[in-house]
Amino acid sequence: MPIYNAPVQDIQFLLQDVLNVTETGVPGYEDLEADFTSAVLEEAGKVARDVLAPLNLSGDQEGCTLENGVVRTPKGFDKAFAAMKDGGWTALDCDPEYGGQGLPYLMGTAVGEILVSANMAFNMYQGLTHGAYSAIHAHGTDEQKAKYLPKMVSCDWTGTMNLTEPHCGTDLGLMRTKADPQDDGSYAITGQKIFISAGEHDLAENIIHLVLAKAAGGPDGIKGVSLFIVPKFLVNDDGSLGDRNGVTVGSIEHKMGIHGNATCVMNYDGAKGWLLGDLHKGMKAMFTMMNEARLGVGLQGYAVAEAAYQNAVAYANDRLQGRAVTGAENPSGPADPLIVHPDIRRNLMDQKSFVEGARAFTFWGAHLIDRSVRMDDADAEGLISLMTPVIKGFQTDKGFEMAVNAQQVWGGHGYIEENGMSQFVRDARIAQIYEGANGIQSLDLVGRKLAQDGGKHVMAFFEMIKSFIKENSEDERMKPFNDALKAGSKDLQAAAMYFMQNGMKNPNNALSGSYDFMHMMGHVCLGFMWARMAKAAFAAQDAGTGDATFLATKIATGRYYMARHMPATGMHLARIESGAEPVMALAAEAF
Amino acid sequence: MPIYNAPVQDIQFLLQDVLNVTETGVPGYEDLEADFTSAVLEEAGKVARDVLAPLNLSGDQEGCTLENGVVRTPKGFDKAFAAMKDGGWTALDCDPEYGGQGLPYLMGTAVGEILVSANMAFNMYQGLTHGAYSAIHAHGTDEQKAKYLPKMVSCDWTGTMNLTEPHCGTDLGLMRTKADPQDDGSYAITGQKIFISAGEHDLAENIIHLVLAKAAGGPDGIKGVSLFIVPKFLVNDDGSLGDRNGVTVGSIEHKMGIHGNATCVMNYDGAKGWLLGDLHKGMKAMFTMMNEARLGVGLQGYAVAEAAYQNAVAYANDRLQGRAVTGAENPSGPADPLIVHPDIRRNLMDQKSFVEGARAFTFWGAHLIDRSVRMDDADAEGLISLMTPVIKGFQTDKGFEMAVNAQQVWGGHGYIEENGMSQFVRDARIAQIYEGANGIQSLDLVGRKLAQDGGKHVMAFFEMIKSFIKENSEDERMKPFNDALKAGSKDLQAAAMYFMQNGMKNPNNALSGSYDFMHMMGHVCLGFMWARMAKAAFAAQDAGTGDATFLATKIATGRYYMARHMPATGMHLARIESGAEPVMALAAEAF
Repeated sequence: MPIYNAPVQDIQFLLQDVLNVTETGVPGYEDLEADFTSAVLEEAGKVARDVLAPLNLSGDQEGCTLENGVVRTPKGFDKAFAAMKDGGWTALDCDPEYGGQGLPYLMGTAVGEILVSANMAFNMYQGLTHGAYSAIHAHGTDEQKAKYLPKMVSCDWTGTMNLTEPHCGTDLGLMRTKADPQDDGSYAITGQKIFISAGEHDLAENIIHLVLAKAAGGPDGIKGVSLFIVPKFLVNDDGSLGDRNGVTVGSIEHKMGIHGNATCVMNYDGAKGWLLGDLHKGMKAMFTMMNEARLGVGLQGYAVAEAAYQNAVAYANDRLQGRAVTGAENPSGPADPLIVHPDIRRNLMDQKSFVEGARAFTFWGAHLIDRSVRMDDADAEGLISLMTPVIKGFQTDKGFEMAVNAQQVWGGHGYIEENGMSQFVRDARIAQIYEGANGIQSLDLVGRKLAQDGGKHVMAFFEMIKSFIKENSEDERMKPFNDALKAGSKDLQAAAMYFMQNGMKNPNNALSGSYDFMHMMGHVCLGFMWARMAKAAFAAQDAGTGDATFLATKIATGRYYMARHMPATGMHLARIESGAEPVMALAAEAF
Repeated sequence: MPIYNAPVQDIQFLLQDVLNVTETGVPGYEDLEADFTSAVLEEAGKVARDVLAPLNLSGDQEGCTLENGVVRTPKGFDKAFAAMKDGGWTALDCDPEYGGQGLPYLMGTAVGEILVSANMAFNMYQGLTHGAYSAIHAHGTDEQKAKYLPKMVSCDWTGTMNLTEPHCGTDLGLMRTKADPQDDGSYAITGQKIFISAGEHDLAENIIHLVLAKAAGGPDGIKGVSLFIVPKFLVNDDGSLGDRNGVTVGSIEHKMGIHGNATCVMNYDGAKGWLLGDLHKGMKAMFTMMNEARLGVGLQGYAVAEAAYQNAVAYANDRLQGRAVTGAENPSGPADPLIVHPDIRRNLMDQKSFVEGARAFTFWGAHLIDRSVRMDDADAEGLISLMTPVIKGFQTDKGFEMAVNAQQVWGGHGYIEENGMSQFVRDARIAQIYEGANGIQSLDLVGRKLAQDGGKHVMAFFEMIKSFIKENSEDERMKPFNDALKAGSKDLQAAAMYFMQNGMKNPNNALSGSYDFMHMMGHVCLGFMWARMAKAAFAAQDAGTGDATFLATKIATGRYYMARHMPATGMHLARIESGAEPVMALAAEAF
């Protein structure tokens, strides 16, 4: 069975040495002293290792079942869910007014990584609830908040997000689900939603569905949709559960992965719903959660890769096959372990340097969200808005690629389901698709975010890199980091310039390069993170603090990223600068 | 259910316009007139579309089962196998002396692509038989050939290759299976083999296992192993089947993909076997088949991608979502089809230009094998020996990547098993692993093939490209092809030079870059193929022959490859030139 150990030392390094959380002045961060964060992470690591990880493979193999309208989750999920609730893990970064612990989003993200690495499918029951909690918290009336949030914070009730319909996923303007206003102020919701994660299951007393639907009187298309709260069981004024609402599960999907999470077709037959936020402003309500939700999916990308990586390392150390070309390293054994071979190293270093860079990028993103929410920092909000599609799109693409790499280390044994490496690949795959497929992320980045507020945020990002390089130019040890970052940033700016100069006359010139731009920007962001991590590691070395081996490893891993991942920016630039012509040359019939 | 239509026009273009088969002087190619090859391909296409493709998804969902030592293949496989036999598809390029049709290997390859695209798992029953046939044909005594080959050519009996054991895959020197000589000239084979494709099933009367085992008296390690013929049922002198041999299936694997093919643990308990080829020269006998077997796997890489691509195109034309940024293209409909969007185009063009380039590369490889076998052309043999790891490693990596891309076009629907896109991804994945994992291919390329015969073959390849560019430098239309090919070839030569200069002092400098070199060389080879295809298309345009739309599409697709795939060589070169240091920096414990 696959192993998993929480990378507490790496996370602590980011929180305490790179982000220097207690010195940021963000309200709430003053509590994040090293001893405290370490204790939380260690505890989360225990739950992940002892409770969640042991159910990952069995949950995949067993999957969910639907019988007579009841969805059963895999064996052990109920007890594990109870353990999560009892430990308070579902309430970590929720509002204390509704029973949450009020920790910063950054801390929720750090713990979230650990839980997702251990069992991605399981953690989605709680993850979706958190998303629905956030929507109600941001847009609900006081009454709605009082009614739903305490039970959702504790995960006695779980939540869902209902957007997709059979004929529309990306293009929600085509939506057909209807909301008819009723005399009592509620709406009757009618329609079918598909791909609803955790839409029905046996882990909670009630499920609070958030449903996008069209009410009459609004503008056509996407601008006219509204968001509704549709509980599975109606909630009485005293908080007790009332009648079953007119929402049922039609079927559950047979998917490539995340078998432990029930993906449901949900039928709404005049179900009672209550408007959440303003009428015809449903997308606005959705969008306020989008940065968090997409960051959460970007986290899944590297978190699953981390778990896969740990198992690739274990196998590479364990499996004896061949001899090191430079001389036997295990002369008393029948062969050397795989890890002596340069190509295995290349593979593992690709994984390790990506995962650690992505973790830093994600934590930085979570920190920006905290700044935006807790300090009303508009610059931080603009920056995370820019970074969100990169965190989601780049990290899930690379996370999947790295899970595939990890599986490859296992050779033929990686293809056998019982060894668990296939599951990492199959699970990681969905993160590239849901919460806006990665092509849509690139469109959001190039079509919207780059030019947002007059391009202010991307300019700020370039400036940030420039200043960083300048500040650290005196330190010779930083040279490989500064040089590679500078080259990558230059490529990225050239691409942005290409879009500006050529996108005006033909927007296809920009959109044909959007995917490459997203990846390019991902590399520059991870390169920037590695430069910051290297700086922190050198500082700790200079101060004689920290674990010397850990710091040396961190620096060497960063050097690998700069040498071996960053050269991708040149390739992406060349692709971008070839423009729309090769991409759009063919008639649709010629494919 | 997924669709599949054989790309006959593309294949004909390669055979008749690019390779000009009838003018090559290869014995047997004189029969490959356009009408004849077209008829064969059309017929193969019908079998693929009507018989094999309809069983692909159901075969995946049902899988194989083992009960009381009997393996059952999925429903319909038996009838389809009978249809393949009746149509003579199993005997296409086999020796007429044993009932084959004697067509060139190139023709077997072209038909093979079509069958694999339609149903990869199914086609492996025949593919493995062909491999075993080739080994016996090349190394068997006249008696062995007479005894086994006719039934294997007709696929009344199928074949297997038994190499891997639980503790050794790549490093076969660790092999434990033993062969004890018996008084009657046979050997008693004892040991366990794993990952044996088609090791047991219900499609044939008998199964002829080829088993690597150690007989006493040979050198230690891999050099001492021998190859044995071990039939499931012993064959009497009159050709009738005798006693059941001491070989049984222990279990079948639960795999990520190719569910329709039974992957078996085979137990040999003193099974009767007969030496094939020379004692202690088993690896030599295996290696003579390796070019063919690896080319066959490289073919699987792009053949599955072709099938996935066709279904991505169908969905992109069918699914209405969003509007073209340059103005509605389906104004009377609720939205435009996906194919109007530049990022969908980028994705589809990546697939299309790869698949068509890989097909050309594979056919060129098959042609080199024909030259080597039918004309004793030592240069062709050297060249295909050099290209084999590239065909296998690069094409299966990219083929998988493109299957993933095709799945991505389907969005959330691509993640649902019933739509078949997941199966393409899961099936394609194995091709990167078996028949020598791709890391091993890169080691073979850089550690062995580059320097083979004093580097003669790689030099010949560079010379071939140089001459081609020179010959076509006057034609302005060829400029984008010549320029990109020249740049890629220059990068590749720089990498080879780096290995020469730095690999001597530390072989890890070469081996740390082997994987990148394999990919780089793959791009240069496909770039070369595209330049040759463009040249042929321009020639046909000039002559006013052929289908004008087809030719224009071919040229545009090639221009895409040159503009958008070829820039990868620069990235790979930069990775290679960073040397072993970043790759090998960490102690094994630091991972």
